[in-house]
Amino acid sequence: MTYCLGIITRSGLVMAADSRTNAGVDYVSTYQKLFDFSLPEERVILICTSGNLSITQSVLTEIQRDLRQQETLNLHTLPNLYDIARYLGSKIRLIQEQDRPWLEKDGIDAQCSLLLGGQVRGENPSLYLIYNQGNCIQATPETPFLQVGETKYGKPILDRTLSYETSLEDAAKCALLSIDSTMKSNISVGPPIDLVMVQADHLKVSHRLRLRTGDPYLAKMRKLWESSLKQAFDQMPPIEWAYQDPQDQEELID
Amino acid sequence: MTYCLGIITRSGLVMAADSRTNAGVDYVSTYQKLFDFSLPEERVILICTSGNLSITQSVLTEIQRDLRQQETLNLHTLPNLYDIARYLGSKIRLIQEQDRPWLEKDGIDAQCSLLLGGQVRGENPSLYLIYNQGNCIQATPETPFLQVGETKYGKPILDRTLSYETSLEDAAKCALLSIDSTMKSNISVGPPIDLVMVQADHLKVSHRLRLRTGDPYLAKMRKLWESSLKQAFDQMPPIEWAYQDPQDQEELID
Repeated sequence: MTYCLGIITRSGLVMAADSRTNAGVDYVSTYQKLFDFSLPEERVILICTSGNLSITQSVLTEIQRDLRQQETLNLHTLPNLYDIARYLGSKIRLIQEQDRPWLEKDGIDAQCSLLLGGQVRGENPSLYLIYNQGNCIQATPETPFLQVGETKYGKPILDRTLSYETSLEDAAKCALLSIDSTMKSNISVGPPIDLVMVQADHLKVSHRLRLRTGDPYLAKMRKLWESSLKQAFDQMPPIEWAYQDPQDQEELID
Repeated sequence: MTYCLGIITRSGLVMAADSRTNAGVDYVSTYQKLFDFSLPEERVILICTSGNLSITQSVLTEIQRDLRQQETLNLHTLPNLYDIARYLGSKIRLIQEQDRPWLEKDGIDAQCSLLLGGQVRGENPSLYLIYNQGNCIQATPETPFLQVGETKYGKPILDRTLSYETSLEDAAKCALLSIDSTMKSNISVGPPIDLVMVQADHLKVSHRLRLRTGDPYLAKMRKLWESSLKQAFDQMPPIEWAYQDPQDQEELID
């Protein structure tokens, strides 16, 4: 399984991904899922991949080939992020056309999806999710994050704490906590965690981090977070029970 | 969708359920999903239902009929909770045998699952999940909670805060927060929320609560929880970036 997320705020972008890949539960390995195709000072292009590894690797290979062969349409020539999202969608469709019938014969899931975040000079930063079908959606100020893969465990923390006005540093912490929550609940999501922060209009990746298993920051963050949750818990007002057996009341107070 | 959960601790049981039922997104209604079949002073029997409403209602009707007709095997005669779990499983199988082929013809999901929590005099309290196939698993001190329905959004809070040694009152708060997190992330899970608390060896429901839409406790709880999360967030240590563009360092501190 995989968990990747992107966050867009007024001040920029955060992208994060785990690195665990598994075929069944008995074949687990580590693959990078966050890729930087930026052309510093000109454009920032970050891609996170999720789903069938052979499909996403082939999509990346096609993209890299277009760059190397200086095709007319490539990540560094397309005029804006929407066109890049569409281009990525066309690559997914190309690979799906080749491989999907063969995968389906053996009941293998060919699904994949991508996150694309970045900024092209002269445009605003933006964040897209490209579906397996090649179509895409864009993050907006109302819903400033997009997720792919194992999305549910890490969504409550985003729903409760993120907005378009959140500072970039807080958005990065929120991304780490969201991934940590997912890792805690689903062992098929795991480290290293890749985290990247991009300030609007700087046109390059400004902060980068790879957190490996046992990383002291990750351990400290988890410990602090859990003790804060417990503290928050203690501060919650007592439940105002509608029915309470008078006999039991005293015992509970004890 | 539905979200129900049961928690078992050293001091007793907590069971909780939402009440929203939907057929597609354009037909939403309210149905109770937490049912009390206790025989006070003799046995506590609480059942939560999830999945296809026609299946779970039929299962409950069968159970009630066995009680009314005083069948040899019913919820009040079976000697322990394991046998009751097996009995519920047999009712699921019965209804599935009748209805499933007809539902499948029209591609309708016939899946359901139940939670069973309680205590029979002379036995320890216990908590079971009965699957759609009629088999069951039991909660243990290592994993003191079981969930059915939309389980993922509400799991991180349980994973981080619950243990077999948690007080019953805290377990009840944790259940409410788990449901509230789920409601926030999935609108097909919604109020009223039913919450029940049972102290070990009291052989009756000691605390009961139904939280309706706009309930002031629910609003207060959510507000306090969110401000606690934000506070916890502020206390998190700054991220120790591996790479940090020197040019951007100053701006972030601002």
